[in-house]
Amino acid sequence: MSGVIYDRVALIGLGLIASSMFWAIKRGGLAGEVTGYARSADTRDTARRIGLCDRVCDSVTEAVEGADLVVLCVPVGVMGAVMEQIAPVLKPGATVTDVGSVKRDVIAQVMPHLPEAVHFVPGHPLAGTEHSGPESGFAELYDNRYTLLIPMEGVPRDAVDRLRALWEGMGANVEEMDADHHDLVLAVTSHAPHLIAYTMVGVADDLRRVTDSEVIKYSAAGFRDFTRIAASDPTMWRDVFLTNKEATLEILGRFTEELFALQRAIRTGDGDHLHDYFTRTRAIRRGIIDAGQDTAAPNFGRGQTQKATG
Amino acid sequence: MSGVIYDRVALIGLGLIASSMFWAIKRGGLAGEVTGYARSADTRDTARRIGLCDRVCDSVTEAVEGADLVVLCVPVGVMGAVMEQIAPVLKPGATVTDVGSVKRDVIAQVMPHLPEAVHFVPGHPLAGTEHSGPESGFAELYDNRYTLLIPMEGVPRDAVDRLRALWEGMGANVEEMDADHHDLVLAVTSHAPHLIAYTMVGVADDLRRVTDSEVIKYSAAGFRDFTRIAASDPTMWRDVFLTNKEATLEILGRFTEELFALQRAIRTGDGDHLHDYFTRTRAIRRGIIDAGQDTAAPNFGRGQTQKATG
Repeated sequence: MSGVIYDRVALIGLGLIASSMFWAIKRGGLAGEVTGYARSADTRDTARRIGLCDRVCDSVTEAVEGADLVVLCVPVGVMGAVMEQIAPVLKPGATVTDVGSVKRDVIAQVMPHLPEAVHFVPGHPLAGTEHSGPESGFAELYDNRYTLLIPMEGVPRDAVDRLRALWEGMGANVEEMDADHHDLVLAVTSHAPHLIAYTMVGVADDLRRVTDSEVIKYSAAGFRDFTRIAASDPTMWRDVFLTNKEATLEILGRFTEELFALQRAIRTGDGDHLHDYFTRTRAIRRGIIDAGQDTAAPNFGRGQTQKATG
Repeated sequence: MSGVIYDRVALIGLGLIASSMFWAIKRGGLAGEVTGYARSADTRDTARRIGLCDRVCDSVTEAVEGADLVVLCVPVGVMGAVMEQIAPVLKPGATVTDVGSVKRDVIAQVMPHLPEAVHFVPGHPLAGTEHSGPESGFAELYDNRYTLLIPMEGVPRDAVDRLRALWEGMGANVEEMDADHHDLVLAVTSHAPHLIAYTMVGVADDLRRVTDSEVIKYSAAGFRDFTRIAASDPTMWRDVFLTNKEATLEILGRFTEELFALQRAIRTGDGDHLHDYFTRTRAIRRGIIDAGQDTAAPNFGRGQTQKATG
């Protein structure tokens, strides 16, 4: 799919998600001009140096002026503040979207500031890596990944369809759902797993009888998979947990319940319970591979890593 | 490193670990002859078909007769039973080793059956994939991974050094430690992370308000990393948890404590606590990459997965 979908797109916040959007938009020729803004002068300098965005602006209002689509790519915690700032200069008929990992809270922050003639279509691309910043983006990030859109009451179908076409042009599969369901699904597939990975890595780090170097050297036994997701952007994740509090805590409650049941099975030596449980979880992995959402290659197809010098 | 280290090696149990050992031994020319035995006739047929082992035997005693090194590659739960069976035919002066993920329990199972003129050097290669069975092995599995050996009291240094040379010939870095420390280190780096991954995948699976297909489709948001380790061999992992009960339960206790502290931070909105915690865990990932134990490529360098048809 290609062809210009929006004459002008403004990317606010120039991290992994926005920079990948830019390269994917360019690859597909999906926009006439893409402007960009980042709060940090360093980030703007980097963006100019690597050719990220057709025009990098020094103020957020300059970046959004005249834009047909404004994409909020800032941490979830500041979506409302940014929206308040740009509201006065938004072009009538423009669409505002976001890429936040939480939807109910973002909607609550954005809606009070939305001008009447502007439509808000919340979005969330389910793609990323453990890297962050303007130099971490790449055009293929969204290929065959899902992007979720939230079509809210009163928003014209046209506005949703156009945004949908943009994401499809960037390679994504698009699905629509309501904000509450989004937040619950993401609590299961993303937020709870991230918190659990952070926790496990933290436990390993401050256990005194096992040294840091042992944790690191022997990580191939399973632990290293946890460290990848526990290396994600701290600010982004702080905001996610604080703004999807209820759903995340609910899933963590379920998780703890289940963990206690397995701990009890270990303590009492109930091997059948453990074996049945572990057999059931294997099937899920198969489903993910069949759906094209991960590689079947062993160890994610990791190449052999370099010989350690130590 | 290469050159024949043992004239005859017997591999008992022909899964991922043994089959990778065979191909690595062949690659390095490290043994004169490698015999193999598996309890299942199907596995033995597969081994013969793919050329796994120089000679596949139909009885375990036939396989170990005359061997200079016997490698027990069976689940941890049956190490003692296999040792009892082979003890009468072991060659005087031979070394027995194992590849079990738990060391104290394996030693307790094996030692009562060990003939006087045979040495037991417990071992554990920290390498693997989520695949299992005789066809899942490959010669490079141990390259730059660590293998831990347990040099026990009364075992001649020569016996340990020779086994060490074999593992180094197969590409591994070898370290020595005592059994208790091994079991604690592995509880942190492997056993607890596996149980946690199994638990999280199980929770996602039986949550009624989020469908299976949603869990699968949207797994790229973090969850899919958990499913890989939760796809590992159920029998092996049942035995690991039952035989490294104390250390695993201790680490899980620490994990739960830490998880509760983070849950409380979420509930009370303590963003600083979360941000500090997430910043600290990032450093560990860096350490693992610097030590050559994982790739720095985003998402483990996964290739783009195939376009889903659904």
